[in-house]
Amino acid sequence: MKKSVLFVTGLLAFNVLSAQKLEIIKLKEPNMNRGSSAMNALENRRSTDEYSDRMLNIDDLSDLLWAANGINRPESGKRTAASAMNRQDVSVYTFTTEGVHLYDAAKHELLPVISGDHRKLFGERGMSPLIILLVTDISKFGDVGTNEDRREWGAIDLGLVSQNMAIFCAANGIGTRPRAGMDREGIASLLKLSDTQLPMLNHSVGYPKLSIDVDE
Amino acid sequence: MKKSVLFVTGLLAFNVLSAQKLEIIKLKEPNMNRGSSAMNALENRRSTDEYSDRMLNIDDLSDLLWAANGINRPESGKRTAASAMNRQDVSVYTFTTEGVHLYDAAKHELLPVISGDHRKLFGERGMSPLIILLVTDISKFGDVGTNEDRREWGAIDLGLVSQNMAIFCAANGIGTRPRAGMDREGIASLLKLSDTQLPMLNHSVGYPKLSIDVDE
Repeated sequence: MKKSVLFVTGLLAFNVLSAQKLEIIKLKEPNMNRGSSAMNALENRRSTDEYSDRMLNIDDLSDLLWAANGINRPESGKRTAASAMNRQDVSVYTFTTEGVHLYDAAKHELLPVISGDHRKLFGERGMSPLIILLVTDISKFGDVGTNEDRREWGAIDLGLVSQNMAIFCAANGIGTRPRAGMDREGIASLLKLSDTQLPMLNHSVGYPKLSIDVDE
Repeated sequence: MKKSVLFVTGLLAFNVLSAQKLEIIKLKEPNMNRGSSAMNALENRRSTDEYSDRMLNIDDLSDLLWAANGINRPESGKRTAASAMNRQDVSVYTFTTEGVHLYDAAKHELLPVISGDHRKLFGERGMSPLIILLVTDISKFGDVGTNEDRREWGAIDLGLVSQNMAIFCAANGIGTRPRAGMDREGIASLLKLSDTQLPMLNHSVGYPKLSIDVDE
């Protein structure tokens, strides 16, 4: 009897520790009173490779995602980044040590996708505590244009979202680098992407290594 | 004798008026002390269609071009927008009533390309005094990747430059809209583009119609 109680308790503990059910992450309202001017952000825009291991805090994570592709006109649901024919084809995923989430712009929260640390799908170079993946769903363009056109529009739309992140990071002392390289097949398989959902770009994101070494 | 002098004078006047040899436009150093914060620019980022007929003044034109794809690190020649493998594949052209110029980031000036008002190549909708054309030259990627990869990288790189303009405009009360639609063949012919120079995106740019009606 005792043995079986211990066994059940052990199983529960195992489940809690290993499965670590991912939670919805409620994000904070964007803080419009932070960071440098747009001109200074453009002046300081650069790509970085060395990051502290410390994950972005909830304020920075919230504002980064809103800056990337959040809703800046609630009445129309329009975004910080334009998109071809306003089809809003770009999805934003976060990869952390905990798991993968999908940004829900309407609710301004992160929806759980899959638990576990899957950051190695983006290679070892410039490993950061947070990786943002941008995926365009070219089915959003319907049958407008050719398939080549739709891929082109999707790629441009991804670029708009990418630069929003680069500028937000530059304005707020956060490091980042956009990268086209990644294990696209592995990512498509992990996230169960359809044939029209194309992972074309990712960003390493983190606090600069040097400043955090001094801070902490 | 009198007749021939008149004839020569007439010819000179004709040449000055019709050919209107385009000049190099020296741009002003970027003014880092202008415009709103990056966050406020993201909040106000939107696409507009109604413009005043008034051309951007030299300060706004200078800073727009620097913001788009200017050099923000003179020691390395690196830009306000990243590019795949730092190949700096994106060229920025201006179309005005006077003619077409090409932005030279190293010299921060506009080089004459061809005189005349060629803005109709971008259609009649949202006609603005200034149209910015973005062209990627995918030959800059050499033989890295497939042709499809290179088009994708070029499109993403164009998107980065495009969003720099959108954010600069939002931070400084200037209207703009990115557009994929244009007469690509007509543009390639006018600018004598090679097969690897792809005009994928343009921006209408101008002062908002209403505020200018009040201002002047």
